[in-house]
Amino acid sequence: MIPTTRNKFISLDEFLQQPETKPACEYIDGEIEEKPVPKGKHSLLQTRLSARINQIAEPSKLGFALTELRCTFTGRSFVPDIAVFYWQNIPLDEDGEIANQFDKPPDWTIEILSPEQRQTRVIRNILFCLNAGTELGWLIDPKELMILVFQSGQQPEIKQGDDEVPGLKKLTHWTMSANQIFDLLKFN
Amino acid sequence: MIPTTRNKFISLDEFLQQPETKPACEYIDGEIEEKPVPKGKHSLLQTRLSARINQIAEPSKLGFALTELRCTFTGRSFVPDIAVFYWQNIPLDEDGEIANQFDKPPDWTIEILSPEQRQTRVIRNILFCLNAGTELGWLIDPKELMILVFQSGQQPEIKQGDDEVPGLKKLTHWTMSANQIFDLLKFN
Repeated sequence: MIPTTRNKFISLDEFLQQPETKPACEYIDGEIEEKPVPKGKHSLLQTRLSARINQIAEPSKLGFALTELRCTFTGRSFVPDIAVFYWQNIPLDEDGEIANQFDKPPDWTIEILSPEQRQTRVIRNILFCLNAGTELGWLIDPKELMILVFQSGQQPEIKQGDDEVPGLKKLTHWTMSANQIFDLLKFN
Repeated sequence: MIPTTRNKFISLDEFLQQPETKPACEYIDGEIEEKPVPKGKHSLLQTRLSARINQIAEPSKLGFALTELRCTFTGRSFVPDIAVFYWQNIPLDEDGEIANQFDKPPDWTIEILSPEQRQTRVIRNILFCLNAGTELGWLIDPKELMILVFQSGQQPEIKQGDDEVPGLKKLTHWTMSANQIFDLLKFN
């Protein structure tokens, strides 16, 4: 079992040799951090939003969204709630199937904030991704009904209500407002 | 007494006519939000950091830091934990004394995160300030020992440990690392 204290320092290789846990652990600057245990609302939004992205992105082979995918790059190992890759950036194995190891940052990283989550750390992880080549980061706050949108090299924006929330630049058919995203939380 | 529910809509003028409360209330997009009750650590950091800024900025008449100052602009009314103004931007009354009404954004807004605070809302307020002309925003997270630095038009940065934390551009003698800032929390 992977220690969850954030003061236990091990190497990235040692970390990656350990068995995966649930909830997943992330490796950042020598520290291991356990993701929060996903709850119903978090899981529903993660499931529906990834499906919505794939509805737009997969038929045109523009991109693909994957949930709880381990991405290891620049000495860190993240597990975004949703990691979206442009089609040509999805690594394939020798059989032409999707690879098991993802050693590059997602093009679009999406984090859904849990009530008990350390928000500054989540933002730090999104900024790490942007600095490693990620084009777009979303931090969805279901409690506040606000989405913080991070784009590489730019000042972040808050999106709420009827604001359109930008997707990947080359995902030209993407259009979804903040309200529409939070409507995914409605079950009935 | 000002209602603290965030669904009570009144006009900015109505809001400004109400007596000030402790803790202060802010007015954002028609909603009134109460700031958290300041606690010891928050107060210590606010007091010492503003003194440190003024130690550098006041003798050279480059700028001045004010704590818990109401700043009302672009239809909103904020009370940053620390608001720093370039010297020439401090409004004066007809006697040449500091004015009571500040109707422009601070040049540098500093927020110190409280454990119970709604972080996305604090970030939204910093972004509002940047969009209204603020040069620099800090979000200090004493629990994580991290500082989120927002600069107008730029991707934010996380500063921690020995990282230098940038001050206002024209405050050329400013130099303080994240560690030095969090050392202000040490009392003995």
